[in-house]
Amino acid sequence: MLSTIPSPIGWGADETIRILDQTLLPEEERYLELRTLEELAEAIRSLRVRGAPLIGIAAAMGVVLAAGRRGSGAAGQQDLTKVREACSRLGATRPTAVNLRWALDRMARRAEAAVGQGHELPAALLEEATAIWDEDRRMCDRIGELGAPLIPRRATVCTVCNAGALATGGIGTALAPVYVQHRAGGEPHVIVPETRPLLQGSRLTAWELQRAGVPVTLIADSMVASRLRLGDVRAVFVGADRIARNGDVANKIGTYGLALAARAHQIPFYVAAPSSTIDLATPNGAAIPIEERSPEEIMAWRGQRSAPSGVGVWNPAFDVTPAELVTAIVTDRGVVAPKDVVRIND
Amino acid sequence: MLSTIPSPIGWGADETIRILDQTLLPEEERYLELRTLEELAEAIRSLRVRGAPLIGIAAAMGVVLAAGRRGSGAAGQQDLTKVREACSRLGATRPTAVNLRWALDRMARRAEAAVGQGHELPAALLEEATAIWDEDRRMCDRIGELGAPLIPRRATVCTVCNAGALATGGIGTALAPVYVQHRAGGEPHVIVPETRPLLQGSRLTAWELQRAGVPVTLIADSMVASRLRLGDVRAVFVGADRIARNGDVANKIGTYGLALAARAHQIPFYVAAPSSTIDLATPNGAAIPIEERSPEEIMAWRGQRSAPSGVGVWNPAFDVTPAELVTAIVTDRGVVAPKDVVRIND
Repeated sequence: MLSTIPSPIGWGADETIRILDQTLLPEEERYLELRTLEELAEAIRSLRVRGAPLIGIAAAMGVVLAAGRRGSGAAGQQDLTKVREACSRLGATRPTAVNLRWALDRMARRAEAAVGQGHELPAALLEEATAIWDEDRRMCDRIGELGAPLIPRRATVCTVCNAGALATGGIGTALAPVYVQHRAGGEPHVIVPETRPLLQGSRLTAWELQRAGVPVTLIADSMVASRLRLGDVRAVFVGADRIARNGDVANKIGTYGLALAARAHQIPFYVAAPSSTIDLATPNGAAIPIEERSPEEIMAWRGQRSAPSGVGVWNPAFDVTPAELVTAIVTDRGVVAPKDVVRIND
Repeated sequence: MLSTIPSPIGWGADETIRILDQTLLPEEERYLELRTLEELAEAIRSLRVRGAPLIGIAAAMGVVLAAGRRGSGAAGQQDLTKVREACSRLGATRPTAVNLRWALDRMARRAEAAVGQGHELPAALLEEATAIWDEDRRMCDRIGELGAPLIPRRATVCTVCNAGALATGGIGTALAPVYVQHRAGGEPHVIVPETRPLLQGSRLTAWELQRAGVPVTLIADSMVASRLRLGDVRAVFVGADRIARNGDVANKIGTYGLALAARAHQIPFYVAAPSSTIDLATPNGAAIPIEERSPEEIMAWRGQRSAPSGVGVWNPAFDVTPAELVTAIVTDRGVVAPKDVVRIND
């Protein structure tokens, strides 16, 4: 079914990382071949490749890139230093998504093991990055299977930002239940808030759902509460960039307002995320670092100025939805109440 | 104090209506001289002149334009027909704002009286339009005086869209208390959501507050709930396009979500509007017609496409905030609980 949506990442020619430049969608479907760690870091920072699960995969591939694809015998401490430096540089690109750190930690541990056991480093790192990607694809499928029964037949559901195929190595997180329902003939219809400032809703989610043949209604972010008040939205599905130990959820800015509106209208509010998004080291939402991005994102759109210069701007990329507003968290390891996330990842 | 903000409307040369084209702000401050009723109707429909109180004033001036500025003795039935046609055409431009209808009804009644009494029609209509404008200016001042005490010193307040000097014949409705507090040295700071799709917040409210020297923090609409959660916002002030008999309020889309967030954080939510906005003929919010605008407003911004073509769009210009979420309604005739609006206009 999702063969109609191009893969947002892959290996390119000459040992490059090939990404779909998501900043150019929906107008242009252009692929970039990233040759260096710096090019990848720039692509992550500027959201050419984005989505918590996908940047984990991209970062893992970046570590492979940094270590070099061709082996030359057993690895040494110098190679390990190179891997650690790569992990450090890539880990600094985005502070909120925990999958990034999780993937880099896996790569670093695998490098240490390979060096300790005198194995060839490039092969070991490529194997680990491939495993991370394969697992992500399976996680998406599993989230879809577990989440689909939460969507009634012919239901309208609401999401935010893009937690779909373009944000993962598979069929997405928040959109995975929608795709599974769609494939089973359940005829879901998705309300998509455009998701300012960078419009991942209108540019990416509307685009991939349309490609997959799922009916979409695009709205401005300010319309979310009114749309939920109409009465036909049966469930809300959002992704997550980090889930704290107490079940608080960091996700794209606007998620919290959507959760308040869902609560006001007694609509189930589901968070769909791979278990790697659950960060037991973070006790609660207040402890999640929230990335603030450039004022320019709100003061202009593709060069068209929309605010007077010199005005103050507040531009957090994420917000925190308290656990009590979350009906359930749909992970690849099961559907749990937010207070029970500790059971998923212990 | 507001001498720094240009008047959004006035009489131009050669009996034209001179308006500031608000679609071009903040990049360009261009004035248009409207010569015909059709030009004015277009300017209202395309939001070159907007804001519930201001379109009431503009429409009244349009009736003057339609009747001709120079009198030729006592008016007859033919003149009255011309006035009624003008009222009908202007009344059809925007369905939600009740001030438009209210102003046109006043003009029609004045025309009937003038004809009935054998008076000169142009002079009578000019007098009535001038009275509507003068009253609006005084209403704004009064709303400012009554609302200012609701803003603590050095407080941060939040608004939505533009209900300021650019939306009225005076210092605004929602922003009037802010301006009065500012003039008194109260040092207010205003959180301004950009207000998609047409960005009246970033283009107009940020612009006029900055001109008046009031500190502004611009946010995307999706950030409203998170910003209120921070804890420093002491009050919300919004305008209104129509207030029903039961206290339900129609205002710019996004107002309802802002009201839900204010309630969740126990922040007072004030609606500031001239008493002419209260429509006792409308029993409740469900009876208020809500204007739906073109999908193009959400699919592109100044020619830059942001959504794939063919996608469905829902684009209501207004929403309804139920009376129970409104702390008080600040009118020129007093500050009342929403359930008591019937006392204001009876």
